[in-house]
Amino acid sequence: MAKPLVVGVDLGGTKVATVVARSDAAIVSRVTRPTEPERGVDAVVDTIIDSVREAVAEAGAKLDDVAGVGVGSPGPLNPETGVVVFAPNLKWHDVPLAAVMRQALGVPVYLENDANLAALGEARYGAGRGSKNMIYITVSTGIGGGLILGGEIYSGSSFVAGEVGHMTITDEDGSPQCGCGNYGCLEALASGPAIARMARELIRHGEETMILDLVHGDIELVTSEVVGRAALAGDAAAIAILGKAADYLGIGIANLVNILNPDTVVIGGGVSRVGEILLKPVREVVAERALKPAFEAVRIVQAELGPDAGVVGAVSLVLSRLRTGAGAGRAGAGN
Amino acid sequence: MAKPLVVGVDLGGTKVATVVARSDAAIVSRVTRPTEPERGVDAVVDTIIDSVREAVAEAGAKLDDVAGVGVGSPGPLNPETGVVVFAPNLKWHDVPLAAVMRQALGVPVYLENDANLAALGEARYGAGRGSKNMIYITVSTGIGGGLILGGEIYSGSSFVAGEVGHMTITDEDGSPQCGCGNYGCLEALASGPAIARMARELIRHGEETMILDLVHGDIELVTSEVVGRAALAGDAAAIAILGKAADYLGIGIANLVNILNPDTVVIGGGVSRVGEILLKPVREVVAERALKPAFEAVRIVQAELGPDAGVVGAVSLVLSRLRTGAGAGRAGAGN
Repeated sequence: MAKPLVVGVDLGGTKVATVVARSDAAIVSRVTRPTEPERGVDAVVDTIIDSVREAVAEAGAKLDDVAGVGVGSPGPLNPETGVVVFAPNLKWHDVPLAAVMRQALGVPVYLENDANLAALGEARYGAGRGSKNMIYITVSTGIGGGLILGGEIYSGSSFVAGEVGHMTITDEDGSPQCGCGNYGCLEALASGPAIARMARELIRHGEETMILDLVHGDIELVTSEVVGRAALAGDAAAIAILGKAADYLGIGIANLVNILNPDTVVIGGGVSRVGEILLKPVREVVAERALKPAFEAVRIVQAELGPDAGVVGAVSLVLSRLRTGAGAGRAGAGN
Repeated sequence: MAKPLVVGVDLGGTKVATVVARSDAAIVSRVTRPTEPERGVDAVVDTIIDSVREAVAEAGAKLDDVAGVGVGSPGPLNPETGVVVFAPNLKWHDVPLAAVMRQALGVPVYLENDANLAALGEARYGAGRGSKNMIYITVSTGIGGGLILGGEIYSGSSFVAGEVGHMTITDEDGSPQCGCGNYGCLEALASGPAIARMARELIRHGEETMILDLVHGDIELVTSEVVGRAALAGDAAAIAILGKAADYLGIGIANLVNILNPDTVVIGGGVSRVGEILLKPVREVVAERALKPAFEAVRIVQAELGPDAGVVGAVSLVLSRLRTGAGAGRAGAGN
């Protein structure tokens, strides 16, 4: 690589995280700014561009030293044209982010879905190091995912592959409705809000648990994070709730293991921070439900990069594109 | 291609189908022999080798004119070593089929899973022509599948990807048990035997249907093929049974569409012969359950190659390997 640095940007609804990294992905500077999407598209794009300039300056470098910028954005987007098609959290429609950034910075810009980038980051520099076929699942407010097949991001035919949270895993009557409108989706059964809902139900049924103490008696403040804290402190009810979520997650992961026969499944997102309390029962369900030769080929592990997965993934994307030479003719990168 | 012909073999539990084809996959001769696996491994392998010689002779050619032989086999196998690891129907364990055939015929031999080859055949020369990301689902005694991602077979990390029939789609109490031991698998709910079971239940409940007439009153003779015939003749109960199977298939396919965002789903196998009676309700369920940008990218169609999918796939595999030069160093092909 002729130019020594790459930039990774993780555009979220709350904050814009930007890092400058070397060609070994080691981070040399970072800048974090609030997104404040209510300021409008142009202001947010300016924030992103300013963040890149600032992070490069902080690294003691110039834009001339930057080989490329990778940007992770939520929502359906087109990595080939560099356009964010729709990002509900940002209220963005058809924003040609890569082209605008390329224009302002004079550097190739590569756009990719944030979940795909988190997957790539974990595959290259996190819990999935050495994997060839890896599934990344993030369990937080929703359940999303990214697929790394043959070592590269698999985007699908309209760049929306990896929506593992909307897998139907039960058509049992009375299943909770998902945000997507359906019933029986994994996301409606095992996401952070689903875990909080199960906790509130248990509390209302009079179950003895420290969860209520942790929120000073205000049941409306119960979140999956609180349930996780109670579980880590040994609270039996909290552990049982996470076990129930793990049952559902295990079914979803067993399905993915049967379909894609990956070597690694990486579980990230806020809910995964409880570690083995969640992972152990997940593995048990997958062992029970996946076909033997598929189960024997896979390890199921906790994500390692935490909130850095997005920026590390964005850096990985640039390094990968520079290595393969792919994407040089893409709209966002090439002109 | 220097040599003008390729050979495709479809090794099944009942018969060995062998074809000789030109480089445009047009079939110029075919030989079919009973497998009779009870004769033992060596006898079956001899039958395969003889079939290849015979089909080449029938094509008015010599083995010298053959660029390669593709073989589709059931069961877990290793396409890299050319070994059939385990094929329950044949009672085969660790049979180095490609190497033995290569030795006898003096021609490169490529081994692949039969469902993957049917998928490849449909993708190249059948209902999936022009597709890039295609899912093939076969609905017959079991439910199997093959994935074509980026235009090539996706085998997974231990060559067992595509086991779509063992996707859990419900954890409702009372779900029928699957042959794999689990409950709620797609295969247990929508395969041929599941359809026959639903028909027998309806008949026992006194439902008016021509199904019983078609089997001359012997309920034990009810099969999914009979249900299909009744449905094609307009029998309301038979159509309702296939509609129920389509509901389950639709859930499974919606899951695959959300996960893999394919451009094409091809449904083959005996049950698919009823065509739109099955496909129309399947599409409705997928429309309802898959995310919009994923549903809009996919067409769901009936397989076109019928029982030829396997041999056409085997021919496609050889043509593909010769084109890319891949596999030349593989154990089964290279020595």
